Amino acid sequence: MTRVTVWNEFVHEQENDTVAEIYPDGIHAVIADALEAGGFDVETATLHEPEHGLTEDVLAETDVLTWWGHAAHDQVEDEIVERVKHHVLEGMGLLVLHSGHFSKVFKSLMGTTCNLKWREAGETERLWVTDPAHPIAEGLPESFEVPEAEMYGEHFDIPQPDALVFNSWFEGGETFRSGCVFHRGKGRIFYFRPGHETYPIYHQDEVRQILRNAAEWAARDDDAPDITRGNAEPVEDIDTSDDRTVH
Amino acid sequence: MTRVTVWNEFVHEQENDTVAEIYPDGIHAVIADALEAGGFDVETATLHEPEHGLTEDVLAETDVLTWWGHAAHDQVEDEIVERVKHHVLEGMGLLVLHSGHFSKVFKSLMGTTCNLKWREAGETERLWVTDPAHPIAEGLPESFEVPEAEMYGEHFDIPQPDALVFNSWFEGGETFRSGCVFHRGKGRIFYFRPGHETYPIYHQDEVRQILRNAAEWAARDDDAPDITRGNAEPVEDIDTSDDRTVH
Amino acid sequence: MTRVTVWNEFVHEQENDTVAEIYPDGIHAVIADALEAGGFDVETATLHEPEHGLTEDVLAETDVLTWWGHAAHDQVEDEIVERVKHHVLEGMGLLVLHSGHFSKVFKSLMGTTCNLKWREAGETERLWVTDPAHPIAEGLPESFEVPEAEMYGEHFDIPQPDALVFNSWFEGGETFRSGCVFHRGKGRIFYFRPGHETYPIYHQDEVRQILRNAAEWAARDDDAPDITRGNAEPVEDIDTSDDRTVH
Amino acid sequence: MTRVTVWNEFVHEQENDTVAEIYPDGIHAVIADALEAGGFDVETATLHEPEHGLTEDVLAETDVLTWWGHAAHDQVEDEIVERVKHHVLEGMGLLVLHSGHFSKVFKSLMGTTCNLKWREAGETERLWVTDPAHPIAEGLPESFEVPEAEMYGEHFDIPQPDALVFNSWFEGGETFRSGCVFHRGKGRIFYFRPGHETYPIYHQDEVRQILRNAAEWAARDDDAPDITRGNAEPVEDIDTSDDRTVH
Repeated sequence: MTRVTVWNEFVHEQENDTVAEIYPDGIHAVIADALEAGGFDVETATLHEPEHGLTEDVLAETDVLTWWGHAAHDQVEDEIVERVKHHVLEGMGLLVLHSGHFSKVFKSLMGTTCNLKWREAGETERLWVTDPAHPIAEGLPESFEVPEAEMYGEHFDIPQPDALVFNSWFEGGETFRSGCVFHRGKGRIFYFRPGHETYPIYHQDEVRQILRNAAEWAARDDDAPDITRGNAEPVEDIDTSDDRTVH
Repeated sequence: MTRVTVWNEFVHEQENDTVAEIYPDGIHAVIADALEAGGFDVETATLHEPEHGLTEDVLAETDVLTWWGHAAHDQVEDEIVERVKHHVLEGMGLLVLHSGHFSKVFKSLMGTTCNLKWREAGETERLWVTDPAHPIAEGLPESFEVPEAEMYGEHFDIPQPDALVFNSWFEGGETFRSGCVFHRGKGRIFYFRPGHETYPIYHQDEVRQILRNAAEWAARDDDAPDITRGNAEPVEDIDTSDDRTVH
Repeated sequence: MTRVTVWNEFVHEQENDTVAEIYPDGIHAVIADALEAGGFDVETATLHEPEHGLTEDVLAETDVLTWWGHAAHDQVEDEIVERVKHHVLEGMGLLVLHSGHFSKVFKSLMGTTCNLKWREAGETERLWVTDPAHPIAEGLPESFEVPEAEMYGEHFDIPQPDALVFNSWFEGGETFRSGCVFHRGKGRIFYFRPGHETYPIYHQDEVRQILRNAAEWAARDDDAPDITRGNAEPVEDIDTSDDRTVH
Repeated sequence: MTRVTVWNEFVHEQENDTVAEIYPDGIHAVIADALEAGGFDVETATLHEPEHGLTEDVLAETDVLTWWGHAAHDQVEDEIVERVKHHVLEGMGLLVLHSGHFSKVFKSLMGTTCNLKWREAGETERLWVTDPAHPIAEGLPESFEVPEAEMYGEHFDIPQPDALVFNSWFEGGETFRSGCVFHRGKGRIFYFRPGHETYPIYHQDEVRQILRNAAEWAARDDDAPDITRGNAEPVEDIDTSDDRTVH
């Protein structure tokens, strides 16, 4: 059974009435609910728990970590960021959600600024499938709408994704690479754009389906290849004679 | 005229007689010579200069930075690393050479450990062109040998390159992705494997040709698109009525 | 001096008054004009010339071929398609324009259906730069509009491009990967979406700039690596003893 | 239960004693055995059956097709090639094995010559994992040897793979991209290099594990997105007024 840890900074829900109404128990509770409906074994963790709820033990027993943060990226301790990154490179799946694009974890794994354009105007977003062969698109229509969304627009400063699964259209005139796959070390990472806290986006069926698809796709392989590093013995005899010529 | 800054930590050459014999004026002097032969406007900079020779002014006037380091990665100040990274993302080309795979700059831009296997046994390396359409391969044979090399072997923990230009074979039984292209922000990055300090690799014709090709390819475009970020105005009128239904 | 051959089926301009008014001498004449303004050495060729104007001699002396076709894809002879494809794989650049997505040449090089959605409603298109590090984006703003365009929408059935330079937004609700880079053999290919015959799109400055950038980027390298094929001699001695064990 | 059809031209086994000894019931029988051991529902098909055993009905009920051919590529009828290609683009997985690189099906899907170097000298091959995050690498060591193999060497004329899972080293001095992933349409394709008919390669454990991993990864998603094509209705009202200016 795939074990998912749903992480949320859990700040907006406690400070903003609109958000609290949509997510009374926190965004993490609704994401967890979507995943449990898919048969995943789900735990949650939040910023203000000790070690942000992301101890070594927790991560060692996590197959996929989902990350939602926005207002408090800077409050995430660097030591925990390094710990999460280490676990991703060692095989833990990572789903980075919406404003998580600016989290320390994602920026560190991408190596770029992860900058973008944004506008909060309750506009319509349409997501189009650009890679119908990818398992994350399974069970979805070729496009679907998020009726009210915060806009994110290009240029999105990320490395070219290893696969581009969704491409977004916004009412106000922008596009965005909304579903991006990255392999890093032994880990599989999926960035998924929708999810602004003031709209009920994680209650929407297509979004919940994508979370489940992505968690299944990203889940740690228990027997991924065991990589060795450093000084290596040769298998073949090496001819160290100097009489070779440069061609 | 394309301006190249050749950076070298310049440690081995002052501490090891073998290296000093091959590179009496430093590895940077030989790399600079290869580039000057291609008509580039070349300056050099080294670790022990103030700000490692990489002031804001120097980087602002650099179209391509080449990076060679090995023994003293930790002595490169974090502030300079951030400065170099910023300039790359804003359009400065970057050529990362050999053991530079473990430099702070490269690891930060890749987001991975950049780990690999290695062995120092003076073995033969053969580099094969895997992307003959790439400008970095121009003027080269389909393969060439480095007669004595330090081995670097897979797994090389990097993001999948945007183009794989060279693939290496080693006498002792390993392969390595030796010529890797990455686009990051507005910047073009090329990682090139050969270049161990105890062998005269930067004196070799094919290697020098690759340095020139890569510098030409990576050079900053003075009029790359001017990217804006943050809050954006819509171009189209946005219909904020609530009567849309989720499809 | 880079030699470009501008190919056009040249059918609509002779049959449709609207098109004839915008392109009185054919679409190829306007594309040629845009390229000549960039210092290219330009020739044109059209469907109804012998061998469609694409003899072995013409292609052998072409560094970049541009392809515009729509109504008469089926009239292009298979032998010429194979000839063009062969030259691309041997290093000739290829710019495939707009409805050229359905040309035999492009479909054969992609290996997919190259299907898409379309709508002719004179709607606004906005092109966003998604890879500001790519030379094809040089000198462009981060986005620009085509005021009246035929819509092309996802899913666009192509292999994932090696680089995605432009992403389009359409007034009616679709997105499209509008500027796609592919390396094939020794050849560089760029697919560029805008260019419907009933709108003056090849008269537009940004579009003309992109044609020039792409032609410069795609141009044949005269000394690309000379690839050998077939039976190969070993460089290393091969140990054919049977006493090795499978690890 | 995933349904695999194992296709084999089945020529060498009936004409060559060495091959017949290693594969008395044909290569397909041994591949089928490897897959059945993984719980797949396996059927076989061969060249000399009517329609090469690949009727519409067979393909419609195939989740993954494996392809081994060498001596008789030209005897595969074009109509069947088109049929297989259509099914791949519509979602059927495809595993192309060894000399299948030169099959009509693979060349048509790649759009390139699929040329390579080769040498038959019974030399050792070592396969290195280059993408340990990919499910096809699951359960494997970081490298393994094929003790006697036909050599395939670069340049391998294929599009850059969407993921490079294995990189091969050969005793005689060559490298090869041996495990290549491609998304095409709704279909997932894996090219896997080892498998020469005169060596018992499909009897080897690691190779059999890779066949099972790849079949699981490539298997058709029954509910992949349903892509529509052609003329599309707009969702948004389109403003067709002419008063917009080109920016």
